[in-house]
Amino acid sequence: MNQSNLPLLNAMQASASRQSAPFYAPGHKRGKGTPQPLKELLGNQVFQADLPELPELDNLFAPQGVISQAQQLAAEAFGAEETWFLVNGSTAGIMAAILATCDAGDKIIVPRNVHRSVISGLILSGAMPIFIYPESDPAWDLAGSITPEAVETALKQHPDAKAVMVVYPTYHGVCGDLTSIAEIVHRHHLPLLVDEAHGAHFAFHPHFPISALAAGADLTVQSTHKVLGAMTQASMLHCQGNRIDRHRLSQSLQLLQSTSPSYLLLASLDAARQQMAFQGKALLEQTLQLAEHAKTQLKKIPHLKILEPATFATPGFFALDPTRLTVCVANLGMTGYEADEILHTQLGVTAELPTLRQLTFILSIGNTHQDINQLIQSFLKLSPSPHLPISPSPNLPISPATISPREAFFAPAEMVPLEQAGDRISTEIVCPYPPGVPVLVPGEIVTTAALNYLQQVLQAGGTITGCSDPDCKTLKVVKNG
Amino acid sequence: MNQSNLPLLNAMQASASRQSAPFYAPGHKRGKGTPQPLKELLGNQVFQADLPELPELDNLFAPQGVISQAQQLAAEAFGAEETWFLVNGSTAGIMAAILATCDAGDKIIVPRNVHRSVISGLILSGAMPIFIYPESDPAWDLAGSITPEAVETALKQHPDAKAVMVVYPTYHGVCGDLTSIAEIVHRHHLPLLVDEAHGAHFAFHPHFPISALAAGADLTVQSTHKVLGAMTQASMLHCQGNRIDRHRLSQSLQLLQSTSPSYLLLASLDAARQQMAFQGKALLEQTLQLAEHAKTQLKKIPHLKILEPATFATPGFFALDPTRLTVCVANLGMTGYEADEILHTQLGVTAELPTLRQLTFILSIGNTHQDINQLIQSFLKLSPSPHLPISPSPNLPISPATISPREAFFAPAEMVPLEQAGDRISTEIVCPYPPGVPVLVPGEIVTTAALNYLQQVLQAGGTITGCSDPDCKTLKVVKNG
Repeated sequence: MNQSNLPLLNAMQASASRQSAPFYAPGHKRGKGTPQPLKELLGNQVFQADLPELPELDNLFAPQGVISQAQQLAAEAFGAEETWFLVNGSTAGIMAAILATCDAGDKIIVPRNVHRSVISGLILSGAMPIFIYPESDPAWDLAGSITPEAVETALKQHPDAKAVMVVYPTYHGVCGDLTSIAEIVHRHHLPLLVDEAHGAHFAFHPHFPISALAAGADLTVQSTHKVLGAMTQASMLHCQGNRIDRHRLSQSLQLLQSTSPSYLLLASLDAARQQMAFQGKALLEQTLQLAEHAKTQLKKIPHLKILEPATFATPGFFALDPTRLTVCVANLGMTGYEADEILHTQLGVTAELPTLRQLTFILSIGNTHQDINQLIQSFLKLSPSPHLPISPSPNLPISPATISPREAFFAPAEMVPLEQAGDRISTEIVCPYPPGVPVLVPGEIVTTAALNYLQQVLQAGGTITGCSDPDCKTLKVVKNG
Repeated sequence: MNQSNLPLLNAMQASASRQSAPFYAPGHKRGKGTPQPLKELLGNQVFQADLPELPELDNLFAPQGVISQAQQLAAEAFGAEETWFLVNGSTAGIMAAILATCDAGDKIIVPRNVHRSVISGLILSGAMPIFIYPESDPAWDLAGSITPEAVETALKQHPDAKAVMVVYPTYHGVCGDLTSIAEIVHRHHLPLLVDEAHGAHFAFHPHFPISALAAGADLTVQSTHKVLGAMTQASMLHCQGNRIDRHRLSQSLQLLQSTSPSYLLLASLDAARQQMAFQGKALLEQTLQLAEHAKTQLKKIPHLKILEPATFATPGFFALDPTRLTVCVANLGMTGYEADEILHTQLGVTAELPTLRQLTFILSIGNTHQDINQLIQSFLKLSPSPHLPISPSPNLPISPATISPREAFFAPAEMVPLEQAGDRISTEIVCPYPPGVPVLVPGEIVTTAALNYLQQVLQAGGTITGCSDPDCKTLKVVKNG
């Protein structure tokens, strides 16, 4: 295939420049009705290209023209047999992967540090999660990968499982031994599904960890917007082999995505693929050099610690994305939140993810030397603070499951104060940072150990996400009786 | 509230113009890594504003800042108590409405001419549809509204139903007597959910049919992009009263939308609300005048027939959106598809929806006098064709349901040639145009009458949508045994 082609983007360019009186949605009619403040924010040109499913622009749910061609080019570039463009983020892809492989009541083996979209997929499908707790490094207070041995054990204990899902890489760039995991999963004749939201760039430069498809994954979901050049909310799902029912996968994706898909998002996927196919290696070479430079300089700054393969010693650890930068600030006597606040509001540097002890930065093809210098200069200005050093999180308690996430979601529920939630069944995801591993998912019993753990995280200055009460003072539990 | 405020858009403007080194997703980092062809298509400026959930930009799933303020302003402007911005289209809103009101097995009363997102909502929730067949006018070959009497009858036959959903207006702008329907539904202590995807403009000018909220709907979903000024895929869900569990509604919306929402879409909702609050009446006055002018002129052209209240006589008909233009071309001796092809490729006019006998045009605040003149001139150039007149569709057969849409979706299935699908259970939606009413939904038996009907539609030149086989030569049915 000719990877220089841009079938979808070029068709949109042609439609955008054609003068045809528009009697279709969107109502702004190529910008004529766009509110003035929105034009001032976004420019005029984008509205010319905010087009609907015109005959020449194909149909996302039954692609036979330019979308189909663009997806085929993407499949080739990313190393897949078939690719689907997603306009509802990787969220839609993860949920569709579960719906396509699990019926209600079916078991699926998943790591505990899954993204909330996995819990949503469990709720919608009715599948029952068999959790593998990831290894974590107390010095770093962050979750790593699951081990091949843990996958093997889970499969032996649950020979009736229908699929295995793995997070690869984690938010912090940590990669497990996916090739070995794929070999084990396939020996059990099951499909391996991968949440590769943070790894869309792996296929385009040899210095990155192996891509999920190259490691043998049957299905992988990538946020093409996170590190590559697509627009926010634009993702891809890739598939290979015959362990996935692709027809059911297509139908599942149709359940979860708007029937008025944004062509801006779709065009950005076509363009991001062409960019990587042609310049991917060169662009990522630059990014790798910037990352190397940043790490070298930051390591010279007293009290800072950089996450590197040599400093992260958890079982199952296999590789680290060299462009994902995690800096521990605990020895500066401040929390990651405090450092983030100063960096963002005073020093002109915005991180992706602050946690209690560290800050994580995404470096991508869009970063410049100037960004890196700003980063280094800002850390030089971060003075040590008189606080006491921050203690790591206690050990994560294991919460026993009683009913499936779907049953918990649909059960009659009530809000109770957190301290009165003991022995009740949670209907919510309760996920403290650090380490970003849920303490409770829907259907699990709120143990005293879990409540103590949450208290300790909050007292240490950590945050808890996922609850419908943003302050986590109340919890939604299944109604008694 | 001060409707001139643009809390979200202004916060984005401030973030976009701030110079902070970006170490967050999206990977294009405010345009620096954007692929060149994408910049050429969309301009540079839009990428500055393609921002993630920065601290100052709030969080769509737990809004407490600028998104919350923007949603409150929208609630006031559209006449709701509470409003949710949607980045996965009205599709997400419709599905969430069903998930929030129905558990697996619960009955919901819905018109047969529902959008496919309703079927998706039934599959995800496990709810069982009780269909009301809409009245249709054979002369126009398009479905109208359901009647208040039919709703009353359905509620008496199914006193255990949990909710009633209504399409208001239809794709063609047809509105039923929603006030009477709301009164009946509330008398039975049930919530009225409205698919108002095509009616987001109704609240802003008195010459439109009454808005769903004003008619008493408990929940309504509007495609803010279809007639108003938002971008494609941006919608709103509005709520009032206490018949809906808003907490469960919020949770349902979180299941169905990307955790990386596009702020471009969100900003366009903020801007579209402000535009309507301030200029809505004046802008829609212009649109109404353009529509009036178009109809007056088109009616003078021989052989054309315009859909107007006086020419559409179906039971349950109450009002017509005066800006929605449906033109019957059957007396020109050509199909709507043929007319559409000529208009779109040769005469510079693009319709929203062609069907066998007619074409439907969306007129909105973005249309100009020039567009209308182009429309009139193009119809003057459409010469009568020597074809025979097109006969209307036969009567729609009723297909008996055996299992719920969810059970059918998850059942083991196989593809069979359409002519061998008799007596099998469909796992697909089969929806012929005209009249846009599904002949089969998942879980229904494929009767001989249904097969004959589909053959007749295809022979007459109609199209069939919804099947996974775009040519509708095969159908996916539940596996025998």
